[in-house]
Amino acid sequence: MMQLGNVLEKVKQKSPLIHNITNNVTANDCANILLACGASPIMAEDPLEVEEVTAISAGLCVNLGTLSPSKAEAILLAGKKANELRHPVLLDPVGAGISQLRIQTAGELLEKVKFAAIRGNISEIQALVSGKGSARGVDAEASGATGQKENLAVFARKVAAKYQTVVVISGESDIVADEKNAYAVYNGHPFMRKVTGSGCQLTSLMAACVTANQEKVLTAVLAAVCWMGICGEKAFQRLTPQEGNATYRNYMIDAVCRLTPEELDAGARYEKIL
Amino acid sequence: MMQLGNVLEKVKQKSPLIHNITNNVTANDCANILLACGASPIMAEDPLEVEEVTAISAGLCVNLGTLSPSKAEAILLAGKKANELRHPVLLDPVGAGISQLRIQTAGELLEKVKFAAIRGNISEIQALVSGKGSARGVDAEASGATGQKENLAVFARKVAAKYQTVVVISGESDIVADEKNAYAVYNGHPFMRKVTGSGCQLTSLMAACVTANQEKVLTAVLAAVCWMGICGEKAFQRLTPQEGNATYRNYMIDAVCRLTPEELDAGARYEKIL
Amino acid sequence: MMQLGNVLEKVKQKSPLIHNITNNVTANDCANILLACGASPIMAEDPLEVEEVTAISAGLCVNLGTLSPSKAEAILLAGKKANELRHPVLLDPVGAGISQLRIQTAGELLEKVKFAAIRGNISEIQALVSGKGSARGVDAEASGATGQKENLAVFARKVAAKYQTVVVISGESDIVADEKNAYAVYNGHPFMRKVTGSGCQLTSLMAACVTANQEKVLTAVLAAVCWMGICGEKAFQRLTPQEGNATYRNYMIDAVCRLTPEELDAGARYEKIL
Repeated sequence: MMQLGNVLEKVKQKSPLIHNITNNVTANDCANILLACGASPIMAEDPLEVEEVTAISAGLCVNLGTLSPSKAEAILLAGKKANELRHPVLLDPVGAGISQLRIQTAGELLEKVKFAAIRGNISEIQALVSGKGSARGVDAEASGATGQKENLAVFARKVAAKYQTVVVISGESDIVADEKNAYAVYNGHPFMRKVTGSGCQLTSLMAACVTANQEKVLTAVLAAVCWMGICGEKAFQRLTPQEGNATYRNYMIDAVCRLTPEELDAGARYEKIL
Repeated sequence: MMQLGNVLEKVKQKSPLIHNITNNVTANDCANILLACGASPIMAEDPLEVEEVTAISAGLCVNLGTLSPSKAEAILLAGKKANELRHPVLLDPVGAGISQLRIQTAGELLEKVKFAAIRGNISEIQALVSGKGSARGVDAEASGATGQKENLAVFARKVAAKYQTVVVISGESDIVADEKNAYAVYNGHPFMRKVTGSGCQLTSLMAACVTANQEKVLTAVLAAVCWMGICGEKAFQRLTPQEGNATYRNYMIDAVCRLTPEELDAGARYEKIL
Repeated sequence: MMQLGNVLEKVKQKSPLIHNITNNVTANDCANILLACGASPIMAEDPLEVEEVTAISAGLCVNLGTLSPSKAEAILLAGKKANELRHPVLLDPVGAGISQLRIQTAGELLEKVKFAAIRGNISEIQALVSGKGSARGVDAEASGATGQKENLAVFARKVAAKYQTVVVISGESDIVADEKNAYAVYNGHPFMRKVTGSGCQLTSLMAACVTANQEKVLTAVLAAVCWMGICGEKAFQRLTPQEGNATYRNYMIDAVCRLTPEELDAGARYEKIL
C-alpha cells in the first residue's frame, strides 16, 4: 500500500509555488485549489514574462484551454525554462483535438518539453497521440470511446512510455500510469463533471503534489487523483436537495482544503491493474 | 399557455454543446450555468480556432464584454460559420454603447450575422439600434430610460423585426418579443443585479434553450427568461440575513441546476402584452 | 476617532461606477465585491476602449496581475485619462517585482500617473520603490521581510511622500499611510491569504470608498481596509469545520455586502502609530 497521505503532508510542509498558465474560464478555481491544498499559485501568461515567473517558481502547470498563439508561445517558453531548471511540468491538454491550433501546439509541446505528468480525458489523450482532431468538446463523457479499463491502462502505459511521463486518463474510473505500472482509481463522483474546470483543478493539484514529491512522481499523481476524487465524494455527501453544481464546486475546494493525510489514506480506492 | 417545462426537458435530453465567446469576468459562471441547465459548454475565443470550435458545437453564444479587436474578429468568424451551419447564434451586447469599439463591432455583427436572439438592458439595445453611445455602464438600471412596459414592448418588436430576431430587454420586468408578439415576464428579483454577469448567464441559458428547441425560438427564449427569473426568486428565498451577493450567485446557479419542468411551468409569470 | 461608517454610507448613497482593469484570475471577484459594497463595476481592458470607459466612470482601479504589453498600455491610457478628469486612480501592483515587464510597467505608471492610493504587500511596495525584482510570488508572507510595524510605517510614509499618495502595506497588521500619518490596522484574519485575489478585492473596495469620499482619501482608505478586515473576521466566525477557502471567499464577499456603518465603526481596530 502506498503512503498517499505522506504526499499530502509534503505539500503542506513545502508549500510549493506553482506557476499556472491556465485558461480564462478556470483560472480562479485553479488558484484557489492550489491554496486549498497548501501550495501557492502564481499566474502569468505573457511570453514576455513567463520565463522569469517560472524561474522563481518550483513547478509549472500548463493548460491548453482558451488557447491563443500568444499563450502557446508562453507555454513553450515556460516549459523549456522549467525543464532547464529541472522543475516538474504538468500538461492539461484541454480540448486537444478540437482545433488545428491546439493540435499543433500540443504536438510542438510534446516534442520540445519534457512533462512530469499529463492529464486529460480519453479523447484528449488520443488527440495528443494521434495528432488528429476528436469529436466532442472538453467535457466529453469518456464512456463511449473508452472501452474497458484494462484497454485504457494498456493505452495509458504506451503513452507514458512514448513521452516518458505519467499519464492520467480521467473517466468513469481514472487511469494513472507510467511506463511500467497502471492503476485504476475508483474515487470520485459523476457530479464532478457538472463543474467546469474540475479537470483543470485536478491538474493543478497534481502539479502541487508532484512538485513537493519529485522523488516519487507516480505516487504523487496517484495521491492527487485520489485526493480530488475523495473530495468529490465528500462534497456530494454534503449536498442538500436544493444545492446544485455551484455549491458543489465550493464544497469540493473546501474538502481539498480540509482533507487530512489520514483521510486520504483511508479513503483512497485504487488498484494496480497492470 | 405555452409549455415552458417542455423546453427545459429538451435541454436535458439533448444536452447541446454551446460554444461561448464570452468575457473574462463571467466566463466561469457562464460555463457553470450551461452545465447547470443540462447543456455542455465549450470556450474558445481566438480567431484561429473559433470556426472549428463552432463547427463541432450545436449553438453559439457571443458576448461583447471585455472586448478586443481580436475577440471582435473571433465573434464575427464564429458567427458567420454558425450561420453557414444553421446553428443558432445568440448575442449579448454587453456595454454596447460604451465605446466606439463596441458600437462598431455590434454594428458589423448585426449586418453580417443573423442572430436567433439578442438580450440586453434597454440602454444596450438602444445603442445597438442607434449605433450611438449610451450613458451609464453595463449594469444600468433600465428604469429611468425605459418608460412603460408597453412602450418597451413596441420598441422590442420593432428591433426584432429589423433584425429578424427575438429580442429580450432585461429590466424591472423583462420584455421578450419577436416581430409579431411581445411578452412581459414578471419573474426575477432585484437582487439579481447584485451579481456580476447575471445577464451574461441568462444569455448563455437562452442559448441552451434555443439550441435544443430550434423549432420554437420565441418559446425557448421565454422559457429561459422565466427559468432564470424563477431561480432568482428561489435563490432569494434561501438567503439568510448574513448571506449576500456571493452566496446568492451560487444559489441561483444551484436553482437552475435543480429546477424541474413542473416547477418552471408552475412558477412562470408572464403575459402577452402585444 | 474617525467616522469610518460614514465612508461606507457614502459608497451606498453614491454608488460610484468603478472602471476596473484587473486580471483574469480575480476579475469576477473584484466585480462582485464592488457590487457587494454598493458600487458598480465596469470592466474593459483593451487600449482601444479604456479611455472612453474611464470617461464615463467615476473612479479607476488598475491591477498588474496577468500583465501583458497590451494591458500595460491600457492601464497607462486609462490612468492618464482619469487624471485629466480628476477621477481617483488606485493601483494594485500585483507581483510588481516578479518580471521586467511588471517592473518597467510599474515604473512608467508611477512616473506618468498620479495615484490616489496604492496597495500591496511589502515585497510589492519595495519592488515599486526600488525598481528591482523581489523574491517570492504574489501572496508572499510579509512577515519575514517586514520587520516591526513601526519600521513599516516609516517606510510607508516615505513612499506616500515620494508619490504623493496613500499607501497600504498588507501584512499581519496592515499599514495605512499618507505623507504625514500612519495607522496600523489590526482587523483581518490569516485565513484571508487562502483566498486568491483577496488583495485585489481590497484594492477594488478601496477604489469604491475613495471615489465616493474624495475629500478625505486617507480616511476612505482606512475605512476600506477595516471594512475588508472585519469581513474577514466575520467570515471566519461563520466557517464550520468542513468548510474551507472556497466557502470562505463567499462569506467574505457576503459580509462586505451586509456590513452596516455601525458595525464598521464598532468593529474597526486601528491605531495611529506615526
